[in-house]
Amino acid sequence: MRASEIRELLKLLDRPGMVSFAGGIPDPSLFEVDAFRNVYGDVLTRSESALQYSTTEGFPPLRRWIAQYMSDRGVPCGEENVLVTHGSQQALDLIGKLFVDPGSSVIMTAPTYLGALQSFTAFEPEFDSVRFSDGLALTNATNARLLYLVPDFANPTGQTLSKQDRVAALELARRAGAILVEDAAYTDLRYEGDAEPRIAALDVAQSGSIEASRTLYCGTFSKTLSPGLRVGWVCGPASLIRRLTLIKQASDLHTSTINQQVIFRIASGYFDQAVARARDTYVQRRDVMLSTLAKYAPQGVRWTTPSGGLFVWLTLPQQLESGALLEKAVARNLAFVPGNAFFADGSGSDHLRLSFSLLDEKTIASGVADLCGLLDDELRRAA
Amino acid sequence: MRASEIRELLKLLDRPGMVSFAGGIPDPSLFEVDAFRNVYGDVLTRSESALQYSTTEGFPPLRRWIAQYMSDRGVPCGEENVLVTHGSQQALDLIGKLFVDPGSSVIMTAPTYLGALQSFTAFEPEFDSVRFSDGLALTNATNARLLYLVPDFANPTGQTLSKQDRVAALELARRAGAILVEDAAYTDLRYEGDAEPRIAALDVAQSGSIEASRTLYCGTFSKTLSPGLRVGWVCGPASLIRRLTLIKQASDLHTSTINQQVIFRIASGYFDQAVARARDTYVQRRDVMLSTLAKYAPQGVRWTTPSGGLFVWLTLPQQLESGALLEKAVARNLAFVPGNAFFADGSGSDHLRLSFSLLDEKTIASGVADLCGLLDDELRRAA
Repeated sequence: MRASEIRELLKLLDRPGMVSFAGGIPDPSLFEVDAFRNVYGDVLTRSESALQYSTTEGFPPLRRWIAQYMSDRGVPCGEENVLVTHGSQQALDLIGKLFVDPGSSVIMTAPTYLGALQSFTAFEPEFDSVRFSDGLALTNATNARLLYLVPDFANPTGQTLSKQDRVAALELARRAGAILVEDAAYTDLRYEGDAEPRIAALDVAQSGSIEASRTLYCGTFSKTLSPGLRVGWVCGPASLIRRLTLIKQASDLHTSTINQQVIFRIASGYFDQAVARARDTYVQRRDVMLSTLAKYAPQGVRWTTPSGGLFVWLTLPQQLESGALLEKAVARNLAFVPGNAFFADGSGSDHLRLSFSLLDEKTIASGVADLCGLLDDELRRAA
Repeated sequence: MRASEIRELLKLLDRPGMVSFAGGIPDPSLFEVDAFRNVYGDVLTRSESALQYSTTEGFPPLRRWIAQYMSDRGVPCGEENVLVTHGSQQALDLIGKLFVDPGSSVIMTAPTYLGALQSFTAFEPEFDSVRFSDGLALTNATNARLLYLVPDFANPTGQTLSKQDRVAALELARRAGAILVEDAAYTDLRYEGDAEPRIAALDVAQSGSIEASRTLYCGTFSKTLSPGLRVGWVCGPASLIRRLTLIKQASDLHTSTINQQVIFRIASGYFDQAVARARDTYVQRRDVMLSTLAKYAPQGVRWTTPSGGLFVWLTLPQQLESGALLEKAVARNLAFVPGNAFFADGSGSDHLRLSFSLLDEKTIASGVADLCGLLDDELRRAA
């Protein structure tokens, strides 16, 4: 099943009655809407600059807030180490523009985040894969521009790299002469257990300072405060941040001034509260998804147990193909993303990704039960 | 004088007492701040989607508003012909990504908009120049990917292409097999005379429909409503819009949802009023700048008479060099942009760009008189 066909099917998601586990998007009922309304009003009352052009680097108080956030998480740094981006997707684009040329090598996990694949593909690299399933099985790549990882509750698998794997990834990046891109899109959404150290923190600890490190950390407010404002960041050595800033200037001048001023105020006042609310809500939805799978999934179906994030990753018995399954699921008003969307080489049709972030617990329970019923029917038919 | 040195000097612009004719930015006192405050509040009250992810193409009512705007200006089209971008700077970046490869040819005027130069330079083309000074002196280029023009009140010269030149530019693009990029950043800000036809309109009239045309029209709300929201657009054949949409998806997913919803409401309610206010204000500032130059500029200094936009372009007698002049101007608390910032080959040091958009009439009068005094002193010294 090709990406364009998958997109066509997923367009049906808005159909009334459709139960979609496809989108990896936050529940808008968790957004601090009243706070946003007040802060937009207040910023437009007090700030003369909110509607005007601003500098490419980003709103200085927001850069300082982010530098403090990073420092609190083991990455001591200053505002010169932070570039505010138009969502973390733009950070990937800028990094691709700076480091990737046609034919150069980019190392990613297989599977990986679809948007990162798309972003880097624009610069025509060769992709090398590292497997994620049993720790990080390292390649022998000796020369690469980028090593891209989503170390926490990865999209699509929900899996998290151990500290040992993070150290190994850094060592691989060093050996390959690559920049390590740490995509921390879901890192704040941990539901249990202790946080693993940021790869950027391990790198700084080993290197002695952020300026000597090789990790570019991509963060975002999209999963915690709101994706609609498009505010993210990249944090790394000041020399690289300056080069990325010049590239951003040529790409879009700067991120929306008013949105940066608003996100700064919301982050300052509500970040911990918003993260706590999101965790409380999502962990219950995850639990319902996992317990329903445990109850109804037919023999031979396996799945991951994410300790955070938005996704559960299913592995199907070999008789089933997730693209064909999606067509049948849509006929039953169910949707998910077939696994091959997340592999550079188009493999992975024995997998599918379920997101538990957007639906209430009751709908998750009945939808997952229905999906298990479909799997059961299809396995019987194939037998 | 190198671009980095110019940037360092221009950083002094915020010094108290500095009279800067450098920035090409709108006067924030013209922004409809109260309307923005009300609309942000209202959108956050009524819209459940304002803070959420949205589609790459853009907010459908905004795309339809833009399609109507284009249709009213001789470019009949529909929402499928419009991609909402993160400012029109992003439109240039997406177009560069789609069409420009290392070594391929891009035709621009010399001088041209600095941001377009930077944007296309990322994709490593060869630049061919067309002169703008006495009509459009066409090159013999027979093969090019892009022909980039700012046809109305161009940045930096303030000059406008005649209808005849627009037809010739289209013919050049056709002969060269190039896409014509019409950057209409200032087109709404005409202070006198009849509007020249959009190049896109001439193209559609000749081609029979927008789908058969080769013009990509880049528009923006930055000069009319607000640059701080970063909302612009590109309009062209649906087949190209679809390809640009995929590139935008990989670049930043989509433009800020809430900002698109707000700009749609502000454009629907206030566009004509905002444009009228801006014209009324800027034309008076232009008049003061031109009359002060006429009164005080030393012999041998020439300048353009823009019928719209934000810029007057000065040509210096050959004894003067605009980079050295800027250093002396800054010492007198005056600033402008030296001409070589606008030439791909670094020439143009006999020019400088003055913007009249941001200062009140009294400050423009005294600042331009001071600048003329400096020119006078420097010419005497050189004599």
